Amino acid sequence: MRKVIFDTDPGVDDAMALAFLCRRPELELIGVTTVHGNADIDTVTRNALFLKDRLGFSAPVAQGSGVTFLNRRGNTATHVHGENALGNIAIDTPRATLDGRRGHRMIIDLVRAHPNEVTIIAVGPLTNLARALDKDPEIARLVQGVVVMGGAFGSNGNTGNVSPVAEANIHNDPEAADAVFTAPWPVTIIGLDVTQQVVMDAAFLRALGECGETGRLLHDVSRFYHGFHQRSRRLDGIFAHDSLAVLYAVRPDLFTLRHGPVRVVCGGIASGQTIQKPEESPFPIGAWDPHPNQSVAIDVHVQAALKVYADSFD
Amino acid sequence: MRKVIFDTDPGVDDAMALAFLCRRPELELIGVTTVHGNADIDTVTRNALFLKDRLGFSAPVAQGSGVTFLNRRGNTATHVHGENALGNIAIDTPRATLDGRRGHRMIIDLVRAHPNEVTIIAVGPLTNLARALDKDPEIARLVQGVVVMGGAFGSNGNTGNVSPVAEANIHNDPEAADAVFTAPWPVTIIGLDVTQQVVMDAAFLRALGECGETGRLLHDVSRFYHGFHQRSRRLDGIFAHDSLAVLYAVRPDLFTLRHGPVRVVCGGIASGQTIQKPEESPFPIGAWDPHPNQSVAIDVHVQAALKVYADSFD
Ligand SMILES: [Ca+2]
Ligand SMILES: [Ca+2]
Repeated sequence: MRKVIFDTDPGVDDAMALAFLCRRPELELIGVTTVHGNADIDTVTRNALFLKDRLGFSAPVAQGSGVTFLNRRGNTATHVHGENALGNIAIDTPRATLDGRRGHRMIIDLVRAHPNEVTIIAVGPLTNLARALDKDPEIARLVQGVVVMGGAFGSNGNTGNVSPVAEANIHNDPEAADAVFTAPWPVTIIGLDVTQQVVMDAAFLRALGECGETGRLLHDVSRFYHGFHQRSRRLDGIFAHDSLAVLYAVRPDLFTLRHGPVRVVCGGIASGQTIQKPEESPFPIGAWDPHPNQSVAIDVHVQAALKVYADSFD
Repeated sequence: MRKVIFDTDPGVDDAMALAFLCRRPELELIGVTTVHGNADIDTVTRNALFLKDRLGFSAPVAQGSGVTFLNRRGNTATHVHGENALGNIAIDTPRATLDGRRGHRMIIDLVRAHPNEVTIIAVGPLTNLARALDKDPEIARLVQGVVVMGGAFGSNGNTGNVSPVAEANIHNDPEAADAVFTAPWPVTIIGLDVTQQVVMDAAFLRALGECGETGRLLHDVSRFYHGFHQRSRRLDGIFAHDSLAVLYAVRPDLFTLRHGPVRVVCGGIASGQTIQKPEESPFPIGAWDPHPNQSVAIDVHVQAALKVYADSFD
């Protein structure tokens, strides 16, 4: 079992990823940290506690950052995820309670408590991870690995989802992402290059809705998100996004990776763009050197990915 | 016959493109303007006059800008094209002489002399075009079209050639390129997405060398450039680059275009990246709006392209 910290801004696809994570016997959830992104920090933290109630996990939930790493601005995407960021389903006041620590502090504590055993799966803006690195840079050497859902590398012509080149998680805090990607820990980045290949279509979501209480919950929270995809993308389904970061922790063999340093454009018209300099590129020395190689997912077995997800709820 | 101004930094592939242009009965060369890029302005201007001698065209040659549009810095790429930028072949002092006008001024004069009849084919940094627009913005409405070799749009996973995202012509003067692409004239951009698909291999270049004096000249100037491609790209041949902008003016049917406003990143790690917002993209209003749609080449018929080039010298 791999110990996992789940850093998240729930969010519809976050909820689907967290439910998937809780179902996987290979993964042991040891902490959940929240971050601004799909909605303000109070909303997404409330959602994390609601999910703790409904999914029944025991790991502590700590509230993370409500503003970006350097510029201190907040973000929301309620036009995508609904006003309450969980598709506007009715949400009771959670019975679960918050851990007293701030998100980045809980990350540091858990990593130091389990040296070289923790995988961080981060599926929101990377503010908490950047703050944890900033307060305690040594954790980079103590983490087993980091899996990020974010970015768009154009490896197959896929582009951004909030600008022609930027994906929302990274666009929402580019300075944090640049700090995380250039730190000396092994990061695997699951971006739109692969997440937009994996579509959970209407039939898939309907079938999921028949898989017990959790399945019904996931189906219900996905209705608003599904509508957004239909309106803005003419897609009768949803992109799997955050669930693919969890999938990578379970089945890395389903992904094709490309290696090389990764930087993030901070500011200007390309702000939030993720750019990898693949190993053995012929380019002159530049901003990518001498940062560590990271791994970028450039392909995925789509049908196998969908099957692993669906089978986890059967 | 379409009247053509050829704006160029010769350069090996510039020489190959200019020779091709002179062979095409559909095109009437009415002026050549030089620009910094593959070598300093004195070198590339001398090369343009040398090519006027050797190719025998009658159009005037005017010296353009030796430094970028806004920042006033020069560029060279003599490690790619040779110290004299024509593959280090012996170059006599040209007999042809310069037109007295500066490059951007000759562009303005020729466009105004032939309203709505002139196509500008620009295969170097876009400094002269930006200066012409700056001095006389109305020319944008008086030009039939602009064809640019430059940029990299990642449409098929192809990337930059001087950074992971930037192509040399645009990287060498991003502010000029942004001014040219956002002006109200129809621009077609032939970038690395297509020019790196079209490889003139060793056999092609050998055969070209047997096509009379001009063929021999082109073969000879390409030796150093060929060596650069072998060393840095492990490619036994050369990318056709500038010749494809001329090809577009002759055979637009060989290209697949994508439409939408184009901006250029100016500064930072992505400096020189060209980014199109394709028509009907779902992104929120941003830096691309409300600039005019331009056309970006995203595919080309490779074998047909090579055949049109080769047949022009047969
Ligand atoms: Ca998320
Ligand atoms: Ca050129």
